[in-house]
Amino acid sequence: MNAVSHTQLTPLSFLERTARVWPDKPGVIYGNRSLSYGEVAARATRVAHALRASGVQTGDRVAYLMPNLPEMLVAHFAVPLAQAVLVAVNTRLSAEEIAYILDHSGAKVLVTDAAFLPTVAAAVQDVTTVTEVIVFEDTEAGGSVDPAAAAAIGSRLVSYADFTARGSDEQLNWSVEDELTPISINYTSGTTGRPKGVVYTHRGAYLNSFGEIVHSSHHQDSVYLWTLPMFHCNGWCTPWAVTGIGGTHVCLREVRGEAIWQQIREHRVTHLNGAPTVVTTILNAAQAGPLDHPLVITTAGAPPSPTTILQMERMGFGIVHVYGLTETYGPYSVAQAQPHWSALRSDERAVVQARQGVGMIQTEGLRVVDEDMVDVPADGSSMGEIVMRGNNVMAGYYRDPEGTAKAFAGGWFHSGDLGVMHPDGYVELRDRAKDVVISGGENISTIEVEQALMSHEAVLEVAVVGVPDEKWGERPKAFVVLKAGKQATEAELIEHVRTKIARYKAPRNIDLVAELPKTSTGKIQKFALREPEWAGRTHRVHG
Amino acid sequence: MNAVSHTQLTPLSFLERTARVWPDKPGVIYGNRSLSYGEVAARATRVAHALRASGVQTGDRVAYLMPNLPEMLVAHFAVPLAQAVLVAVNTRLSAEEIAYILDHSGAKVLVTDAAFLPTVAAAVQDVTTVTEVIVFEDTEAGGSVDPAAAAAIGSRLVSYADFTARGSDEQLNWSVEDELTPISINYTSGTTGRPKGVVYTHRGAYLNSFGEIVHSSHHQDSVYLWTLPMFHCNGWCTPWAVTGIGGTHVCLREVRGEAIWQQIREHRVTHLNGAPTVVTTILNAAQAGPLDHPLVITTAGAPPSPTTILQMERMGFGIVHVYGLTETYGPYSVAQAQPHWSALRSDERAVVQARQGVGMIQTEGLRVVDEDMVDVPADGSSMGEIVMRGNNVMAGYYRDPEGTAKAFAGGWFHSGDLGVMHPDGYVELRDRAKDVVISGGENISTIEVEQALMSHEAVLEVAVVGVPDEKWGERPKAFVVLKAGKQATEAELIEHVRTKIARYKAPRNIDLVAELPKTSTGKIQKFALREPEWAGRTHRVHG
Repeated sequence: MNAVSHTQLTPLSFLERTARVWPDKPGVIYGNRSLSYGEVAARATRVAHALRASGVQTGDRVAYLMPNLPEMLVAHFAVPLAQAVLVAVNTRLSAEEIAYILDHSGAKVLVTDAAFLPTVAAAVQDVTTVTEVIVFEDTEAGGSVDPAAAAAIGSRLVSYADFTARGSDEQLNWSVEDELTPISINYTSGTTGRPKGVVYTHRGAYLNSFGEIVHSSHHQDSVYLWTLPMFHCNGWCTPWAVTGIGGTHVCLREVRGEAIWQQIREHRVTHLNGAPTVVTTILNAAQAGPLDHPLVITTAGAPPSPTTILQMERMGFGIVHVYGLTETYGPYSVAQAQPHWSALRSDERAVVQARQGVGMIQTEGLRVVDEDMVDVPADGSSMGEIVMRGNNVMAGYYRDPEGTAKAFAGGWFHSGDLGVMHPDGYVELRDRAKDVVISGGENISTIEVEQALMSHEAVLEVAVVGVPDEKWGERPKAFVVLKAGKQATEAELIEHVRTKIARYKAPRNIDLVAELPKTSTGKIQKFALREPEWAGRTHRVHG
Repeated sequence: MNAVSHTQLTPLSFLERTARVWPDKPGVIYGNRSLSYGEVAARATRVAHALRASGVQTGDRVAYLMPNLPEMLVAHFAVPLAQAVLVAVNTRLSAEEIAYILDHSGAKVLVTDAAFLPTVAAAVQDVTTVTEVIVFEDTEAGGSVDPAAAAAIGSRLVSYADFTARGSDEQLNWSVEDELTPISINYTSGTTGRPKGVVYTHRGAYLNSFGEIVHSSHHQDSVYLWTLPMFHCNGWCTPWAVTGIGGTHVCLREVRGEAIWQQIREHRVTHLNGAPTVVTTILNAAQAGPLDHPLVITTAGAPPSPTTILQMERMGFGIVHVYGLTETYGPYSVAQAQPHWSALRSDERAVVQARQGVGMIQTEGLRVVDEDMVDVPADGSSMGEIVMRGNNVMAGYYRDPEGTAKAFAGGWFHSGDLGVMHPDGYVELRDRAKDVVISGGENISTIEVEQALMSHEAVLEVAVVGVPDEKWGERPKAFVVLKAGKQATEAELIEHVRTKIARYKAPRNIDLVAELPKTSTGKIQKFALREPEWAGRTHRVHG
């Protein structure tokens, strides 16, 4: 009965439509630069042609090592428009790590920003698959090419201007033959072992974009500020989602409080995404102040403490708390508001908002299961592993059938995160599996301890890890950054925790530190805190 | 690399999720009745089991002849949950027309409201495929079964209570094996020939629901008033869309101004859909008054006149003007707002808002083509046929491969509607192909003449058709309903039109009438006006 085949789902259709409907509307703003959607589409077309001219063929990988610049946004359309696969690489990685990703993905072309050229020169030295390194000079940031690095790269180096000059303005099809074709590979910054290449499909990216639009309440007048790196889970599919809805992207090279507040006020930013540490940066910037227009922050990466949620609300931010992993295109679940929440005291509401919640509209929902894949009781206390499935879970790990099979054991993707299922069906993350503290046989959620510490008015940031204990095997230890001008002693903080949660969960020690080690996406690197504590021991209680 | 198969798209997942996330939230309100989403899901499950118990098997058709009751909403989930196909029948059809649809669709079960039982008794008399007629008594409306009709139906008649008692509460899978499986068949109320069965798929219904959510700006606090019949294009997929977003449905048995205003005020309705005639009913009701909360009306079916758009805006309604056909799951395009529109004078803005616009976010976009499928110039004056394609176009006509092939000639669905493409890419409907008036070789758009008449302050409603003319072949004739208490003569109205558009387009005659003939969805039945004018003639100029 099917008269014509249905259209294959692809986020390419979003830019095609938006450029047609709003050709003159600002698509992306960066410093003094601004590109209309017509120009974004024209550049995507030109870059796609240029990639083809560089020998990129259907299914080939194209790597980008670039901050949140307009060119990085363009890449999210240009690479799939060339029928190729985008590998957006974390800009904080070392040359060795970048080399591994380039080699593993077999990227043919690497597009980078001049600032990273010395690292790139070292990275590509032994990577033969990369036939060209395209370098972009960010005039807004005064970026220029380092001559020594250029010399080291040699004839493979091509300027972005020369590269795009090889392109053409001839229209290409904003479509894909099969929606299950990979659109991108995102390498996870695992704390142990080699990074894994998480494969996203056109279909998954398209459907996840709708989820972002629905749950972050995007609309055609959205002004979205890029604080989340686009290289992180393809910015949770937001390059595609905001383009699809016809909003405006505002790029930011570096996530600093002053610059964020300037952009918020100058462009009347309506939406931004970021880890709680980004939120902390915003809240504690010298320029912070009450908002005079609505701004929704969609936050994930770690559960925001109820204290942070309260602070945000007082300043006028709307908060959407989501949870997911690289393997789930970024956000998979949301702490979806319930009608009765508005009647809760603000601190009670913050507690429920900090839950990981329920699967987003485009998902199949979350399960919390035991080792036999049986759902744990929905009692808010039985811990199990969070598993997911469906259109918003990766197609698999690139060139890693074993890893893929293991991750999907039992037909569901294993997050490695431990959580509980509340009686209302909302999931609460209790710990990343590797971060849980097992003390005298009891699991202690480091998140619970962290949230107890965050509720102290002098605390800015905190991380809790398990450290060796002769009697209990492990005990929690906390690392705390105090707010500027605030004071608190170790004993005072431990006592504060004991008023909030069971005494056995309180940390034995607290180190007051100036800052915490973080990944480029703002996640606290607990392994960096944990390792020195375990130095010299041959056994850890757990992974 | 695909570790697990992706999830098949189906609107069933919307109710599964919403009932899980908001089990206690009002899902549907009707008079004094209210069902939570948990109850809606429970009823859908029970009805699905009951259908199976009645012998309905996978792929079988189940017909519903019912007004906008909660049971009709439940049907949109229960029938696909039983892996069957919903045939929602227009309640204004004659027994003979209903019999044709039951026979053509091969429906095994017919579920109806007691009010239609006499018609149903006549309809099913010779239709042997229908093994059971389930009758629902709407206690809110005092509906009861007519004994004579019941006797005529005989042993095939089963009460809705007995029917659901056969069901069970055992959980069923809210999924489908193949997203391209038909979910419903909607028979078009063609003005000539037999109605055609338009097949919708699970995938199309799912994706179109996202389009409705995006373009009508639905959110989890939406309160949606059912003025659009659910039997019309499955209510533009709104049973699925509003359920998916977690809003509340408000049912209404009959579309009367008083009842609409009562519901708007009692339930603080945020959204409703309807043809311009529904809008006219709302605007001109005795109870009409300025709104004290935001309410978006999504309107289609015929282009609203700029005059109507202005009136709506003054009363505080937000307006979304969409365009589509039964074959496109209802709306396919939208008069998407442009940033510069807000600077336009309100009458100028109304003119652009009355355009059919651009394809919605989930579509491939509209084309306006000549007979050789070549796009007409985008000059706002070259007329051509509007064609569409993609996920939001039907799978085909049921049991009509020839009709399907003809409708999809050249790979695009032919709307039969004539329009122009403006230089900005917005389509403007000039006429339903069959309604255009050809006078002295010139095409006259009846819509243009109607809008000129609507701009007269005494005019409530208008319809223009072509009538025979010795000299010109055809000339436009208008039928006008005046507003209560307003006066205008034929000559005065004709003169008014001449000040607005080319003189040759002005109607030769105007009949002032008490009301216009309409379909159940509020579309004016032009053929009923046209036929008497052509009586006794063997030839029509066209159509």
